[in-house]
Amino acid sequence: MNLLLKQILDDCRHYTAQGHVATYIPQLAKVDPGKLGIYMIEAGAHDSFAGDCFERFTMQSVVKTMILLLALMDSGIDKVRALVGAEATGKPFDTFNYSDQALTGAHINPMVNTGAIALCTLIHGETYEEKFMRLLNLTRLLADNQELTVDEDVYRSEKETGNKNRALAYMLTAYGMIHDPVEDILDCYFRACSILVTCRDLARIALVFAHHGWDPKNGKRYFTPELARYVNATLATCGMYDGSGEFALTVGFPAKSGVGGGILGVIPKRMGIAVYAPALDKHGNSMAGVKVLAALSKELDLGIF
Amino acid sequence: MNLLLKQILDDCRHYTAQGHVATYIPQLAKVDPGKLGIYMIEAGAHDSFAGDCFERFTMQSVVKTMILLLALMDSGIDKVRALVGAEATGKPFDTFNYSDQALTGAHINPMVNTGAIALCTLIHGETYEEKFMRLLNLTRLLADNQELTVDEDVYRSEKETGNKNRALAYMLTAYGMIHDPVEDILDCYFRACSILVTCRDLARIALVFAHHGWDPKNGKRYFTPELARYVNATLATCGMYDGSGEFALTVGFPAKSGVGGGILGVIPKRMGIAVYAPALDKHGNSMAGVKVLAALSKELDLGIF
Amino acid sequence: MNLLLKQILDDCRHYTAQGHVATYIPQLAKVDPGKLGIYMIEAGAHDSFAGDCFERFTMQSVVKTMILLLALMDSGIDKVRALVGAEATGKPFDTFNYSDQALTGAHINPMVNTGAIALCTLIHGETYEEKFMRLLNLTRLLADNQELTVDEDVYRSEKETGNKNRALAYMLTAYGMIHDPVEDILDCYFRACSILVTCRDLARIALVFAHHGWDPKNGKRYFTPELARYVNATLATCGMYDGSGEFALTVGFPAKSGVGGGILGVIPKRMGIAVYAPALDKHGNSMAGVKVLAALSKELDLGIF
Amino acid sequence: MNLLLKQILDDCRHYTAQGHVATYIPQLAKVDPGKLGIYMIEAGAHDSFAGDCFERFTMQSVVKTMILLLALMDSGIDKVRALVGAEATGKPFDTFNYSDQALTGAHINPMVNTGAIALCTLIHGETYEEKFMRLLNLTRLLADNQELTVDEDVYRSEKETGNKNRALAYMLTAYGMIHDPVEDILDCYFRACSILVTCRDLARIALVFAHHGWDPKNGKRYFTPELARYVNATLATCGMYDGSGEFALTVGFPAKSGVGGGILGVIPKRMGIAVYAPALDKHGNSMAGVKVLAALSKELDLGIF
Repeated sequence: MNLLLKQILDDCRHYTAQGHVATYIPQLAKVDPGKLGIYMIEAGAHDSFAGDCFERFTMQSVVKTMILLLALMDSGIDKVRALVGAEATGKPFDTFNYSDQALTGAHINPMVNTGAIALCTLIHGETYEEKFMRLLNLTRLLADNQELTVDEDVYRSEKETGNKNRALAYMLTAYGMIHDPVEDILDCYFRACSILVTCRDLARIALVFAHHGWDPKNGKRYFTPELARYVNATLATCGMYDGSGEFALTVGFPAKSGVGGGILGVIPKRMGIAVYAPALDKHGNSMAGVKVLAALSKELDLGIF
Repeated sequence: MNLLLKQILDDCRHYTAQGHVATYIPQLAKVDPGKLGIYMIEAGAHDSFAGDCFERFTMQSVVKTMILLLALMDSGIDKVRALVGAEATGKPFDTFNYSDQALTGAHINPMVNTGAIALCTLIHGETYEEKFMRLLNLTRLLADNQELTVDEDVYRSEKETGNKNRALAYMLTAYGMIHDPVEDILDCYFRACSILVTCRDLARIALVFAHHGWDPKNGKRYFTPELARYVNATLATCGMYDGSGEFALTVGFPAKSGVGGGILGVIPKRMGIAVYAPALDKHGNSMAGVKVLAALSKELDLGIF
Repeated sequence: MNLLLKQILDDCRHYTAQGHVATYIPQLAKVDPGKLGIYMIEAGAHDSFAGDCFERFTMQSVVKTMILLLALMDSGIDKVRALVGAEATGKPFDTFNYSDQALTGAHINPMVNTGAIALCTLIHGETYEEKFMRLLNLTRLLADNQELTVDEDVYRSEKETGNKNRALAYMLTAYGMIHDPVEDILDCYFRACSILVTCRDLARIALVFAHHGWDPKNGKRYFTPELARYVNATLATCGMYDGSGEFALTVGFPAKSGVGGGILGVIPKRMGIAVYAPALDKHGNSMAGVKVLAALSKELDLGIF
Repeated sequence: MNLLLKQILDDCRHYTAQGHVATYIPQLAKVDPGKLGIYMIEAGAHDSFAGDCFERFTMQSVVKTMILLLALMDSGIDKVRALVGAEATGKPFDTFNYSDQALTGAHINPMVNTGAIALCTLIHGETYEEKFMRLLNLTRLLADNQELTVDEDVYRSEKETGNKNRALAYMLTAYGMIHDPVEDILDCYFRACSILVTCRDLARIALVFAHHGWDPKNGKRYFTPELARYVNATLATCGMYDGSGEFALTVGFPAKSGVGGGILGVIPKRMGIAVYAPALDKHGNSMAGVKVLAALSKELDLGIF
């Protein structure tokens, strides 16, 4: 399988030159746009991988998957559904354009910034430091990697420049949807976005989602199938920003991208995959990453539709 | 299995009293809101069914599935993608609220009225009468039912009152997205919406989509797996109006609803299902129908996420 | 005064090269963009004029002033206010982007196409032919020119290509705001837009609005001061499309422009003015015309604010 | 004249029972909704007044008039126009609903919160404390009242609860439209909104705007006619929130309202007026205040259209 993965990377490598690395966070603008890696894990098989799959990058929006999961585990489906909606918004992930009417949960979802910021308040913990540590520990657990840490430079860079997220958080406050101090919540959110991972880490996390909360490598159950399906379904309809519909057509399985260049892909009951390629398309998705997943999906019949 | 289906219908019957039958088409307002039926087809097994599954109702938006398929078969993926987008719009199916900018394909998709009307122009045929007959014949073929006809009363009722669709069609014309006479296109569209079917017919069609264009009952291939996946993926992200995200969470497979009360459900590689219950929820989806599918999905593990 | 007018035209003539004549109506695309004229009428003084002030052009949106007036005269303020709003929409004159909610009068106003089309239904007359003749006759009366006629080529051109207006009219129908056959209403509207006038005609009409319904040239009263103020106030806030705020800052009196290149200007209790220059700015207002009015307003202290 | 004013107040007093005092700032919710006062100043005449015209209330949005004026005086028309637009937005004053596109000055204006907050940055001063003091001193000068101070309770109340304004300010920051610390700018803005005035103070300020920057009571010129017309024209098109069009129809002169219940009215070249009645209509304008001004405008022919 490593041969196939290497072949696909080579075939798609030219797409790395067509996208653009994220620049709105200055620290992200420094990465090498030529990086390209993939990692694939299937229960009962050797892991497969190729390219820069051990390169570390920040999770960025991929962490929304973890925030949603922990909010569900801590507060339950009803509270999550009461706070954020489930429909695609038809708008960019950081839009201010909500409605002529008062903002409600129905206008947002867990995969847009407003929704993920709101969900941080549903994670248990005395302080936002503690909430963040619980999120980091869950991520380490699912990734089977206790070494995961935060990229402090990216974190500080996001904190300094994250005024759009501040605007969104104050809007949530103004409409009574969140009640804690905005800077505390955002500090947790910015740290979460700055967790450093590799393709292996993300594929390992994806494997647990694929097996509906159960880890086939060690036989442990981390969360219920019901929550896993909730997250996977959310990824399928909204995980790839306003490119989610297109992704469903061309790739065809639940996935979540981040502007750091990573994509976590879940093939339910089958495998976890992750790709890394930091040059992004117009939606904010890894350009070469999407192409690699499309080629792989076609070759291995990974589409679920 | 018929016992299980009957049990689920009984458990969900009270929801028929909570929704409301569509009234914007006067002819639809006359149906009995208490009807409830289900039909399920799996390759190599006896069909299962319960309730009012042989009751006839008009396809309404369920026919968007067939329009998309025939447009893809006749004109190919590239032309379809050039005309209509793939993203959920975040808006009701008949919205006028497109954008501050010029209307483009990116603002619509095959499952909203604007998109389906536009796709009628990509169906082959000398006249719109011929285009419609080709659509009807394809529907008869997939449903394995040569008797399918149009409900002339509903058709005339839609034609008389369909001014929102006229507005959308003239908007498409104004932006150069369609070029044929609006009344001709709409006549084809209104007839298509008025095709009479039963749950059995829809389940039979769904079975072919589930088997990616191949009919396991007679061994015939009607269209390519690539087109089937295209349609199924579109149903999964946009098939249930602006309730598609919620439906993915609670039911979890591709489906298309119509304001006639029918829902066509596709369980890829496994089975075709259809339900009928004409009282609708606020999104325009069959209220009891969605509940029945949720219960069945949970019981038989039909979710694909 | 003719010397001053000539001087101002000469100073502003270069702006005629910066705008663009309307092209969405093919017939309008044929006019000479270099034309520039002005006509000014004050009670008890000789008329002043310069340039192409006797050139004939179609009223286009300037006729919205007359439609609003006649709807007010025929049906009264209450019925007009119940059908169309009074607020600027913040959007282009032919926008489809109304709201996430049902269309109501509050979303439109008499100076956008949707509002003017709706107001045609409040003009009295057995048929739309008769309504139009009453509108034409009122225009002739205020312009003191019985020769006014319709440009049949422009009328037919608008009728053939006016699909955006068809879309807007069907939308009004769909929301129950108008009830007559769309093509009849639009026929009246397109004819009204195609009435041929000169700067002298428009200045003469403006003079009557300036004197609040009374014609100082012949001592006749055509309508009440209350209706005149209603129209003038509407022009002041919405008369120049989504350039109305800017126009208030730089020119400072009620005015109505049309894509034919004419602008009718009302200086209350003082004078009527009209300019003609068919090259338009991005809002659809006569580019040189606005500049000429700004220079004249500054020179003669015509601003009312 | 005092008799007439008293009569009009009596006729309109019942409207005070129909509106609602602002509650989003807790401190404002405490005022007596039955208050009603008016003050009118004309050059060369005795002041006229009636009712609670010496009652003190906070300026709230009325201060936008002063912020715009001082920004114009300090930074000039070009810089003001480059930062904020001139068109009515068609939306409520505190909307987040800007556009699908990047926020630009064209989407806002000086009379909505976003615009007024942005304009605070164009007021000269080393610190925002100094900017505010210059604004307060200009207000004292035009009001001819050195005693004007801030209501510290209202100021603190706005600062504590002003999260919508924080959201708007961070949005402006995110789009590069303002560059200073958000809390500094908002502190200046909240203080400005909390300046305590009476009807006499506002009428005195309005008198100077009416005489285009010149104070007929003492013969001093405070600012140029060009700036006065700029402000007056802005009030005429956008001064009464999304009730500005309606106000132009029924009252007909430039005015600015605040949720404190005050309205400042400018009758160009003629007089300054102010009313106070804290119960508001759905747009946020003083309900009885608008009715009083409408009656007065009709009686004294104050409309400029």
